[in-house]
Amino acid sequence: MPARFELTREFIDELKKAVGTNDETLVYNLVKDLHAADIAELYGGLSMDEAKYVYLLLDNEKAGDVLIELEEDDRDRFLHALPGEVIARQFIEKMDSDDAADVIGDLPQDKKEEVLQNIDDLEQAGEIVDLLGYHEDSAGGLMAKELIQVNENWDIETCIREIRKQASEVEEVYYVYVVDNNEILKGTISLKRIMLARSNAKVKNIYKPDIIYVKTDASSEDVANLMEKYDIIALPVVDAIGRLVGRITIDDVVDVIKEEAEKDYQMISGITEDIEPSDDILVITRARIPWLFIGLVGGILGAQVIGIFENEIIKDARLAMFLPLILAMAGNAGVQSSSIVVQGLASKSIDLDSTWKKLLKECMIGLLIASVFAGLMLTYNLIFSPSLHLTITVSAALFSVIMFASVFGTFIPLLLNRFKIDPAVATGPFITTMNDILGMFIYLGLSRFLYTILS
Amino acid sequence: MPARFELTREFIDELKKAVGTNDETLVYNLVKDLHAADIAELYGGLSMDEAKYVYLLLDNEKAGDVLIELEEDDRDRFLHALPGEVIARQFIEKMDSDDAADVIGDLPQDKKEEVLQNIDDLEQAGEIVDLLGYHEDSAGGLMAKELIQVNENWDIETCIREIRKQASEVEEVYYVYVVDNNEILKGTISLKRIMLARSNAKVKNIYKPDIIYVKTDASSEDVANLMEKYDIIALPVVDAIGRLVGRITIDDVVDVIKEEAEKDYQMISGITEDIEPSDDILVITRARIPWLFIGLVGGILGAQVIGIFENEIIKDARLAMFLPLILAMAGNAGVQSSSIVVQGLASKSIDLDSTWKKLLKECMIGLLIASVFAGLMLTYNLIFSPSLHLTITVSAALFSVIMFASVFGTFIPLLLNRFKIDPAVATGPFITTMNDILGMFIYLGLSRFLYTILS
Repeated sequence: MPARFELTREFIDELKKAVGTNDETLVYNLVKDLHAADIAELYGGLSMDEAKYVYLLLDNEKAGDVLIELEEDDRDRFLHALPGEVIARQFIEKMDSDDAADVIGDLPQDKKEEVLQNIDDLEQAGEIVDLLGYHEDSAGGLMAKELIQVNENWDIETCIREIRKQASEVEEVYYVYVVDNNEILKGTISLKRIMLARSNAKVKNIYKPDIIYVKTDASSEDVANLMEKYDIIALPVVDAIGRLVGRITIDDVVDVIKEEAEKDYQMISGITEDIEPSDDILVITRARIPWLFIGLVGGILGAQVIGIFENEIIKDARLAMFLPLILAMAGNAGVQSSSIVVQGLASKSIDLDSTWKKLLKECMIGLLIASVFAGLMLTYNLIFSPSLHLTITVSAALFSVIMFASVFGTFIPLLLNRFKIDPAVATGPFITTMNDILGMFIYLGLSRFLYTILS
Repeated sequence: MPARFELTREFIDELKKAVGTNDETLVYNLVKDLHAADIAELYGGLSMDEAKYVYLLLDNEKAGDVLIELEEDDRDRFLHALPGEVIARQFIEKMDSDDAADVIGDLPQDKKEEVLQNIDDLEQAGEIVDLLGYHEDSAGGLMAKELIQVNENWDIETCIREIRKQASEVEEVYYVYVVDNNEILKGTISLKRIMLARSNAKVKNIYKPDIIYVKTDASSEDVANLMEKYDIIALPVVDAIGRLVGRITIDDVVDVIKEEAEKDYQMISGITEDIEPSDDILVITRARIPWLFIGLVGGILGAQVIGIFENEIIKDARLAMFLPLILAMAGNAGVQSSSIVVQGLASKSIDLDSTWKKLLKECMIGLLIASVFAGLMLTYNLIFSPSLHLTITVSAALFSVIMFASVFGTFIPLLLNRFKIDPAVATGPFITTMNDILGMFIYLGLSRFLYTILS
């Protein structure tokens, strides 16, 4: 088996041909040694019918793994075609509780119940129902019930016996959790430690009591920040009174971290949904239109603003020459400021400064940047522009819009965050559009004002 | 000890006061139970002298951990003040090899040698020197030498004895690696499996041979993608002939994943360096000026373009009204297209389509979007604009710039990627600036053209 599988056009073609000629043995041989993640990726290159054909040839356990790795909408389409009983017996019973809850949670209500009723292992069914009760984006929604726990009063021999018993259900053992008689989480003990200890030693005397945990209602973002900050591989989850109820492993959290970063990125690039280049043309178009529409409305409003100042442009058409420059500089400066705030808020990096202090700091940065560029433009126009009025207008406006965009770009995401709205909204075309309109007002208004006092 | 520490202004003030009054006991008591990551965060609120005072009161091992958690430039300043001997004996000897190599790798050459010569544990010094030979952004640069390996020919009893011996050096044991007599990596065996096996069983007969690994020269991006895709907690690293030389744990890779995402985000927001809101005003200003400068140069070029068409604006000043709208729509559409490509390339999601197929797809999306918005503007202007010339010019130009920006925005990052340049460069103000200039040409050029044929 190859250590890593490289998906090629040739492989897809060979597989498609095998499916086309109904060659079950060849299809099975082509995919049997592939990792579930590779098979899921493979599906991107197959039609629904081809994918289904391949899927039904997989071993049950592998089929369950593939199900988890599939994109959500592909998975829903797959499950739609299968009766609840098959889903329960063939897939769910082979899955870890967190994966099973994810799959079942996405099903329509009647199918959900049908699947749950068909799970023979009542303990597993109960665990899944427990997990379904938590919000998807909370620690409870991320955790798995499978874990190994030992009582602090046991000795090492009992421990090892119990671990052997419990271990058959848990795929990967990172930590063994220590609880008291009331199931309250006390600490951890590593397998290494257990292997090194004498068999009559008490857990109580050798476990590690310093432990970082979360409650079930912690947000997935908090979980991700915590695991990242403290380099935690498996984070225990406790209920309201401190009883151990599950654990979250870092691989599930890596997805959360990626999704958070992608969400911010999509926001700043003006895309409303989680899309991929391989998505359908209509899906991509739909995700792109909303922000562009806001831009269009902003543009029309901007046109009205310029309309108000039409006389200025009639007086000196060269005024229009520098309008795009003013607006582009305002837009860029504003997005810079907002994105710095958004990244700071996302990384929860040390935040001891008050909003006022932050705005003051941004004012000083804005002042520096605005001075630099207003100065550059002044020099440029003093050399190349014959009109003193235009020269002064452009530099004064550039100074003002950069100052304004910087402070505005800092203030808006902080404000949104205060009201529990995702601050990344501020980085979208929204703030650029606002900057555009205000930039026009400042530039053309200044021109009129200078005209009045200079003439 | 609190499970989680919440850094507050009050805590910082109390600590600063204790440092100010030289109250060593109080300072020590305040920080002694804190996690290294919290202490490192704390330093953001202290002056260099205060931070140093706190640092020197820490236990050696904790001090080493804090060193790792510090931002790179803070760390360099700390180490600058200490003699190489102290760095070696007090910090490096307590660190894992990968952390030690990271710290030493950042030191100036003479200090680096001084520190290396002062490490008493020659085996550790050798490991660090090995690691320093790899590129920072490669699997070799990410890996730690600490791991547990067993020979496939051993029985379980020998295994356990050997693991006990090796385990004292390895903090966290996730997998036990199996090698043959030539140190060639063969597979893994879990501690769980070892605990469940009979003591005379042979490793050879029970280890798991399917294993995903990387070579030392794999890029850190590949390592991150692999670990993320296959949900790997600890990835073994082999040399050119397959000998096991180290392992990479997921917590180190989480940082890589975050950094990649942040790099793309900074690029799209027009910031050239990895900065945080808490950075110095001058540092932030310096990171913001380069892209703004490109924007300024682009704006001046744009002004020249408009200058060429000055007569069109003199003929109809209302032409200027819709210029910002045209440019904003082109900019937004272009950034959308580029960011979709950049995210697709970053996630290495299935990529079986040729460049031509991608461009064709983007053409169709561009066609849809351009039609929608050109249609909207046409309707708007037919109702509100008295000038047919302006109405046609605006819609035709809007259609063209959206089409153009979409295709251009898709093509440029693909082109950059082909030439091994980070495609995210295309999402910066660079592409917006290009779009601006071309948008002006199209809009004003179309106006002149229509004037000629309509009159």
